[in-house]
Amino acid sequence: MTRISRVELTPVAFADPPLLNVVGVHEPYALRTIVQVHTDDGLVGLGETYAADDHLERLKAVAGVLPELDAFDLNELRRRVRDVLTAGGTKVGGMLNLQDPADVVLSPYEVALLDIQGKALGRPVVDLLGGAVRESVPFSAYLFYKWAAHPGAELDEWGEAVDPGGIVLQARKMIREYGFTAIKLKGGVFAPDREVEAILALADAFPEHKLRIDPNGAWTVDTSVKVARELDGVIEYLEDPTPTIDGMAEVARRTDVPLATNMCVIAFDHLKPAVLADAVQVVLSDHHYWGGLRRSQLLAGICDTFGMGLSMHSNSHLGISLAAMTHLAAATPNLMYACDTHYPWKTEDVIKPGVLAFRSGSVPVPDGPGLGVELDADALGELHEQYLACGLRKRDDTAYMRSVDPGFTPNTARW
Amino acid sequence: MTRISRVELTPVAFADPPLLNVVGVHEPYALRTIVQVHTDDGLVGLGETYAADDHLERLKAVAGVLPELDAFDLNELRRRVRDVLTAGGTKVGGMLNLQDPADVVLSPYEVALLDIQGKALGRPVVDLLGGAVRESVPFSAYLFYKWAAHPGAELDEWGEAVDPGGIVLQARKMIREYGFTAIKLKGGVFAPDREVEAILALADAFPEHKLRIDPNGAWTVDTSVKVARELDGVIEYLEDPTPTIDGMAEVARRTDVPLATNMCVIAFDHLKPAVLADAVQVVLSDHHYWGGLRRSQLLAGICDTFGMGLSMHSNSHLGISLAAMTHLAAATPNLMYACDTHYPWKTEDVIKPGVLAFRSGSVPVPDGPGLGVELDADALGELHEQYLACGLRKRDDTAYMRSVDPGFTPNTARW
Ligand SMILES: [Mg+2]
Ligand SMILES: [Mg+2]
Repeated sequence: MTRISRVELTPVAFADPPLLNVVGVHEPYALRTIVQVHTDDGLVGLGETYAADDHLERLKAVAGVLPELDAFDLNELRRRVRDVLTAGGTKVGGMLNLQDPADVVLSPYEVALLDIQGKALGRPVVDLLGGAVRESVPFSAYLFYKWAAHPGAELDEWGEAVDPGGIVLQARKMIREYGFTAIKLKGGVFAPDREVEAILALADAFPEHKLRIDPNGAWTVDTSVKVARELDGVIEYLEDPTPTIDGMAEVARRTDVPLATNMCVIAFDHLKPAVLADAVQVVLSDHHYWGGLRRSQLLAGICDTFGMGLSMHSNSHLGISLAAMTHLAAATPNLMYACDTHYPWKTEDVIKPGVLAFRSGSVPVPDGPGLGVELDADALGELHEQYLACGLRKRDDTAYMRSVDPGFTPNTARW
Repeated sequence: MTRISRVELTPVAFADPPLLNVVGVHEPYALRTIVQVHTDDGLVGLGETYAADDHLERLKAVAGVLPELDAFDLNELRRRVRDVLTAGGTKVGGMLNLQDPADVVLSPYEVALLDIQGKALGRPVVDLLGGAVRESVPFSAYLFYKWAAHPGAELDEWGEAVDPGGIVLQARKMIREYGFTAIKLKGGVFAPDREVEAILALADAFPEHKLRIDPNGAWTVDTSVKVARELDGVIEYLEDPTPTIDGMAEVARRTDVPLATNMCVIAFDHLKPAVLADAVQVVLSDHHYWGGLRRSQLLAGICDTFGMGLSMHSNSHLGISLAAMTHLAAATPNLMYACDTHYPWKTEDVIKPGVLAFRSGSVPVPDGPGLGVELDADALGELHEQYLACGLRKRDDTAYMRSVDPGFTPNTARW
């Protein structure tokens, strides 16, 4: 029996470039909580999750009831998470609201327990999830409109990107360095015509690459249909052009371009209405809010069963999450798209280097026991100090944008 | 690495009483295939499945491609099963036809690999499935109309049951011996009024017990609605009153009694049409045709997500299957009904006694590594000899009934 002895929660902040999106702009630091679950036989399981104050409070409440839990008893973990949580919604990824925080809080603990299980058994996590159907996992080049620098700060290595030319240059650099074969453009920042122009410029510059655009619900139904027609045959899917299941369903009825979402289907409760409305053709899974790796596998099975495609969503994250995403994706047969990742945008991490690397746009599945990544205690300490010093306690892209542009309002369904 | 070295398939026949159903009567022997998967480090994993000739041929074809497979690589197992199988439907449980045999053939191998994994790790299978949410699994008393004996044979210990009085006597004996707190009556044998009368007699005799009736699609939609009204408040669900998803959906629209099925939803392909038609309120899972324990967990998650209840179906089976059913049910939080089992009807088995026992109608989850049951080589040999001697090579309740009643035709949608 491998029993949990104690839990350490360490909020960290890592430098993040000024990436633009529908609700504003990324702040100078992105926040994460690093979860370390210790067992009575000396193992440590790792998890990584959001770090907003209310989330951190919930994580702490759960940490208090985990001692003595058998690291294989994921059902009991889930029961204890549900027992401890009081009612109340939660915000994930900066712009998504979940009514029920249980799966979000469960996630890093479930990942940590799988890490422990793998270490106890001498098996990588992918084996616990059913075995690798691919030895390395393709990710996409995740392009952003961005400023050249945070206000008052030095230029970052990426430079400005506010037009098609800037986006193509950004793509060239990212693809040169990482080898990606799929490209995603985060839109919802400029008028749709200008963003369509950027996609067409990318199609010109990278005729062999798969393309997607994600305006995070910035468009009306009519605009979404218009853009879908313009990009039919150019993009592999159109991600969240407009808000809500009903809005997506109406767009879906009026175009053949597959619609993808990580905004209107972000919890198990949303699946039945989405299926009944035939609202989306691709669900972007994300183990951070779908309740961990096993429940993400359930989501994958549901997509397979109900004829929906499956891709993977990302927020700003560190190496523990990249490892977990890679194990999960490797064990998921019906994940047929390159996964999203913010990984190229970060310059700091909490894990020891050497395990996670991009080769031709893909990350080979770590083959060590568990997640296969190791915490760097010094780096963790530094990023925790940075968290304490930076003063940020939740993500608020809109407030940060307003500090520069006081009249800014989020672009949701603006065009 | 625990790699498969070889596979042994042993068809067996075990004595079965003359139980009546919609398509005829159980033959004197029920057939099963016992699967033994051996590994290069000396472990043996057990599985149990149907034994019809065409199924046995498919099992053999898969056995040939399993050597060298890592016992943790369930995804690769499934890929190999799909690769090996040629097209063609398959019959399960005597009256159900599946277009795609892959999940049926996968099942006993998946169970055997989980048994190996548990043995390799020193953990019961329930732990690999997420941990026990209940320490023992409730089953139902599975009542049948029956003859006093097979033609020309000695009386069995159960006696005749062809009317309400006989059914109540059967229930008394079974509940006295096993302690069941739920009762299922297999119907579709006599006119609906007579079967309703039996249920009402059971309700009288066992006012605290949960009741169900399963006529295996013997009724028309109108009759189903009529019976549902008569038994509203008396039964916890009405199982397959009428054939097809459309038929069930029409009944569902006209009654509040929950409808259950193991006939119109028996493969993942059937779930979307059933959900869209709102045809059933309870799905009876069965790992033998849903593709093993992990895929049955997927089914459980789908039922949970789409607001359907979950119960468990049974065909005539031996102890390996009972162990697998118990581990699965113990790890399934949303299994809220007592599971069906034919176990009380058999007098022979292939496993060593002592592990599986009914206490107050429930089976405590075996706590040994893997499935926790051990094969009895002598008993296996005897039941294999019985298979060779009995001459039966597939289940055919209708042909057997016709040997007694030449004019018999199945009662499907008869009333
Ligand atoms: Mg998105
Ligand atoms: Mg049935």
